Amino acid sequence: MTDPDTRFWAVVPAGGAGTRLWPLSRSSSPKFLHDLTGSGRTLLQATADRLAPLCADRLLVVTGRAHVDAVRAQLPGVPDDQIVAEPSPRDSMPAIALAAAIIERRDPDAIIGSFAADHVIADQPAFLAAVREAVAVAATGALVTIGLQPTHAATGFGYIELGEPLAVPGAPHASAVRSFVEKPDAATAARWVEGGGHRWNAGMFVVGAGVLLDLLAQHHPELATGVRAIAADPASIDAGWPALTKIPIDTAVAEPAAAEGRVAVVSADLGWDDVGDFASLAPLLAAQPDRPGLRVLGDPAHVVALDAGGLVSTSGRTVVVLGLQDVVVVDTADAVLVTTAAHAQQVKRIVETLRAAGRDDLV
Amino acid sequence: MTDPDTRFWAVVPAGGAGTRLWPLSRSSSPKFLHDLTGSGRTLLQATADRLAPLCADRLLVVTGRAHVDAVRAQLPGVPDDQIVAEPSPRDSMPAIALAAAIIERRDPDAIIGSFAADHVIADQPAFLAAVREAVAVAATGALVTIGLQPTHAATGFGYIELGEPLAVPGAPHASAVRSFVEKPDAATAARWVEGGGHRWNAGMFVVGAGVLLDLLAQHHPELATGVRAIAADPASIDAGWPALTKIPIDTAVAEPAAAEGRVAVVSADLGWDDVGDFASLAPLLAAQPDRPGLRVLGDPAHVVALDAGGLVSTSGRTVVVLGLQDVVVVDTADAVLVTTAAHAQQVKRIVETLRAAGRDDLV
Repeated sequence: MTDPDTRFWAVVPAGGAGTRLWPLSRSSSPKFLHDLTGSGRTLLQATADRLAPLCADRLLVVTGRAHVDAVRAQLPGVPDDQIVAEPSPRDSMPAIALAAAIIERRDPDAIIGSFAADHVIADQPAFLAAVREAVAVAATGALVTIGLQPTHAATGFGYIELGEPLAVPGAPHASAVRSFVEKPDAATAARWVEGGGHRWNAGMFVVGAGVLLDLLAQHHPELATGVRAIAADPASIDAGWPALTKIPIDTAVAEPAAAEGRVAVVSADLGWDDVGDFASLAPLLAAQPDRPGLRVLGDPAHVVALDAGGLVSTSGRTVVVLGLQDVVVVDTADAVLVTTAAHAQQVKRIVETLRAAGRDDLV
Repeated sequence: MTDPDTRFWAVVPAGGAGTRLWPLSRSSSPKFLHDLTGSGRTLLQATADRLAPLCADRLLVVTGRAHVDAVRAQLPGVPDDQIVAEPSPRDSMPAIALAAAIIERRDPDAIIGSFAADHVIADQPAFLAAVREAVAVAATGALVTIGLQPTHAATGFGYIELGEPLAVPGAPHASAVRSFVEKPDAATAARWVEGGGHRWNAGMFVVGAGVLLDLLAQHHPELATGVRAIAADPASIDAGWPALTKIPIDTAVAEPAAAEGRVAVVSADLGWDDVGDFASLAPLLAAQPDRPGLRVLGDPAHVVALDAGGLVSTSGRTVVVLGLQDVVVVDTADAVLVTTAAHAQQVKRIVETLRAAGRDDLV
């Protein structure tokens, strides 16, 4: 069952290297192309599945040129002209703005919702409800973000400071946004979680395509002109793309628009996770009934744990862990990683080290 | 340059599963067939190399039927009739006794020296000198063992209690043996190491072939008769072998002969190691000049260690260890082991677990 509101288009920026998930995530095959949770669907596919009740076939993916074939293969239902290839990475604003410009030409009244291809959302009904609220608020001309109820004092995300509640019909959880705030220190994060007046910024934006482009025209006119020109003549992308300013959507339009009181937030509790590293991945994997301390990605029959626990990812080889708790073992065809949950954030150092050693084939 | 004493024959029992070195050592390809020290030679080949100056082409290997082809391939210089295939494992006495019986038929005055195929000896000149002393003592009719200077209070080996020094020309380090003693507890081992009157029993025996068979005829006459019958008619091995008593040489002849005062020991300090587990393997591997806490088996270029150390064995895949000290990572084509040096003795539990799970293909 899909929503009758055919104004809604889903935009899925499929990028990001996922270096903290090396060696599963590689530049040639990044995080969003992998089934990291053992669900049977890749993160990209799960994102498309999640959006389908809202957008039906109105899904547009923006990805790197190197990944277009993989995206097509994973999403065979998405027409080729709804998979947009970026010639080079230019951060989130050009990608989303180009999507908005392409969609605006199909439906000037379209409302787009942008959702990263590599996040996990456990509570699908809550997600659908939140996006529907956000669409209702976006229809009033606001730039709407979905703000996530913090579950712990995370220092790795930006936060959204709530303003006054809004009185938009069909959007009981909508508030004004006072400001977007950068990643806080631990004490600040703890205070915000305690206070209840902040939400995590997961980069989910819902906004009229034209509204977004008009906001962009106000703050970065050359970007708005550039993406509209490419949308009008897709063959011009190679010439036009490199000139576009490399900038994230937050700083390009969300923060300045918030300062002008034009941004709203729908508060939601979605069981959201950005699957940023192996420590955050582990709880997303199915528990092993007879091995409570162990999480396995791949066939659990290939994993033997003796006095051991943690996260083991197997590519088909047998992996045996003996006498180590909270270990992370990731076995792939050409590389094996052994570390601990406590070092999950440092995995990106490995990618840097391998690059410095000239091992671009491995990263 | 080889010794002029053509009475000396080297016997190499090539057996033992090496389950504490899983997944490198497998029942289909046990420890002795592997280059575990990165020397470029397998333990079996290194054993043959070590004995060559003493025995020239008088080397006889006794191995399991399943390993005969591999032994032939690794020791192309050893004639087929000097590689004896046991139809089934019957411990060390039948193997060495059959070797003695075969060699006795070639040279009734032969002195045999038996040395396991899967040990490491760092000090080759000391080894040669010790065996030459042992041959001199064996020529007097004694059963001679080489007793190793303990380097620590090991509880995993049997010990030899020294008796009075012997006055055999050419054997300044020879003593009588008072007794062989079983693996001691830690306190006893510490006392023995401190006291200086004990040596490690590494299972190195040097003895006249006929002397050994006569000792055997005295204590286990059916075994002596059995191996002499097989030596006389090698085709009878399938019929005769299963009837042989399964018994180690220590209890079959060494301990009773010691009680009769017929056993001597040559004390030596050889840099010996039985490469029993990964903890004992690590120090045998070359140090990494710029990575002092890391030992690598395989190509060190395939190993990345960040804030990490221990033992890493790579089969060609890149292995990355992040934030773990004293870790043991063993990467093979079909299995990966992750453990710690402190758990090295427990690796055999993995083999038991895999067998219980019906994974005989992996052990």
